[in-house]
Amino acid sequence: MIIELAKNYGFCFGVKRAIKKAEQIKDAATIGPLIHNNEEISRLQKKFNVKTLQNITDLTNEKKAIIRTHGITKQDLAELQKKNIEIFDATCPFVTKPQQLCEQMSKEGYEVVIFGDENHPEVKGVKSYVSTKAYVVLDKSELEDLKLPHKIAVVSQTTKKVEQFMELVNFLMLKVKEVRVFNTICDATFKNQAAITELSKKSDIIIIVGGKNSANTKQLFLIAKNYCEDSYLIETQDELEKSWFKDKKHCGISAGASTPDWIIKEVVDKIKAF
Amino acid sequence: MIIELAKNYGFCFGVKRAIKKAEQIKDAATIGPLIHNNEEISRLQKKFNVKTLQNITDLTNEKKAIIRTHGITKQDLAELQKKNIEIFDATCPFVTKPQQLCEQMSKEGYEVVIFGDENHPEVKGVKSYVSTKAYVVLDKSELEDLKLPHKIAVVSQTTKKVEQFMELVNFLMLKVKEVRVFNTICDATFKNQAAITELSKKSDIIIIVGGKNSANTKQLFLIAKNYCEDSYLIETQDELEKSWFKDKKHCGISAGASTPDWIIKEVVDKIKAF
Repeated sequence: MIIELAKNYGFCFGVKRAIKKAEQIKDAATIGPLIHNNEEISRLQKKFNVKTLQNITDLTNEKKAIIRTHGITKQDLAELQKKNIEIFDATCPFVTKPQQLCEQMSKEGYEVVIFGDENHPEVKGVKSYVSTKAYVVLDKSELEDLKLPHKIAVVSQTTKKVEQFMELVNFLMLKVKEVRVFNTICDATFKNQAAITELSKKSDIIIIVGGKNSANTKQLFLIAKNYCEDSYLIETQDELEKSWFKDKKHCGISAGASTPDWIIKEVVDKIKAF
Repeated sequence: MIIELAKNYGFCFGVKRAIKKAEQIKDAATIGPLIHNNEEISRLQKKFNVKTLQNITDLTNEKKAIIRTHGITKQDLAELQKKNIEIFDATCPFVTKPQQLCEQMSKEGYEVVIFGDENHPEVKGVKSYVSTKAYVVLDKSELEDLKLPHKIAVVSQTTKKVEQFMELVNFLMLKVKEVRVFNTICDATFKNQAAITELSKKSDIIIIVGGKNSANTKQLFLIAKNYCEDSYLIETQDELEKSWFKDKKHCGISAGASTPDWIIKEVVDKIKAF
């Protein structure tokens, strides 16, 4: 069986940057996981004493706080700034961008459509910068019965599929006189999605490695599944099952933007051993 | 044979308004045809002494000038204002809008993509209000090899197909960080296009009545042709041929936004007589 890695996969710029910061800062707390990968979070905790808190209220006597790659809300940032704690910002610059755009567009009087998952921390953070009205949607149908203003700004969660973002924009073009579109889908997302599309077309089994709470990982899995029925999403090599690979000829592998190389390597080694 | 008129067809708001103005003003000259329908232009000339000149330089001792529905360039307007002539503006408000948008977007530093035919008088007029850089295109492929700026504004010729406008916007979303979309396709265009789409699906012959120099008429013809092979574009009933209707069961009829009712009636009467 051929084992082939996607042309682009794994750690993106923002994740690499955040991990490097966390390793340098050490002995710090993050509010919510720094990145969406449990294994890597454990490693940072064990080796660099970077612990993960769920909320700002969980802070006790920590001296250093790191803001996660997905960013936090404007309100949480204000709370944090009131505390006697040193703040390090590891928000991915590609996430800071839509935050700033939402703030700017609000100032200019635009209501803002955010294409994304309202429960995702990145989207919660971005939305918090809208001071007019924000519409967080995953599908155009959610806007169908609403009365929208004459002009609207649109941003996207960084990890969404661009084709779906286009569908939303096309829908808005029919409803609203001015649609001010900011394509905030990040480049790594683009490239990883294009690479898994290509790879899954020629594979008879696909393994996606990444956090099950990771939006971009789930997106890769959905794309793979679309072209290759036998696609699996796993967090570590422990979840691999030998039976999956029976009679398979071409195994494609990709990984989410928060998946470290050492986990991918373990997965590849185990598949080879089967 | 059933003869069925499209649910929406013929004279639009802007054309009705221009003809009414011309009839009231009388004894005037237009620079280029007031609307794109030769028959109606002849009628206005004969009954109201409204004559059509090709260029501003053709003006001699006229006292009154009417600006055509498609508008004129900013430069031509300035020329006209220098002359000792009373100016009446019959530019369709839906055309004035993209002119204003181009001027405003230029002021804000945007380069402007105009989706339309560079040889069409409306587009020439709209383009003349761009003081940064204008890209007039009919297809995204014309932009493929260009280096575009980070932000761009987009308007459309009022009579284009919205699906093609969306394709262009989708393409720009991949190339440019900010795409500021103004959907300037006019409502009458939308409605007439939707109606001919519906009608041509159930007809075995379609007659489109309108000026062969009319962009919206040509668009209606192309849509009809897509669904009904036996579609014809005619300017007057003189062009109808009996043989077209042999064995046909359902004849659909529509007309461009510049086609007066009396011409449509003549066409229907002649078909009935066959």
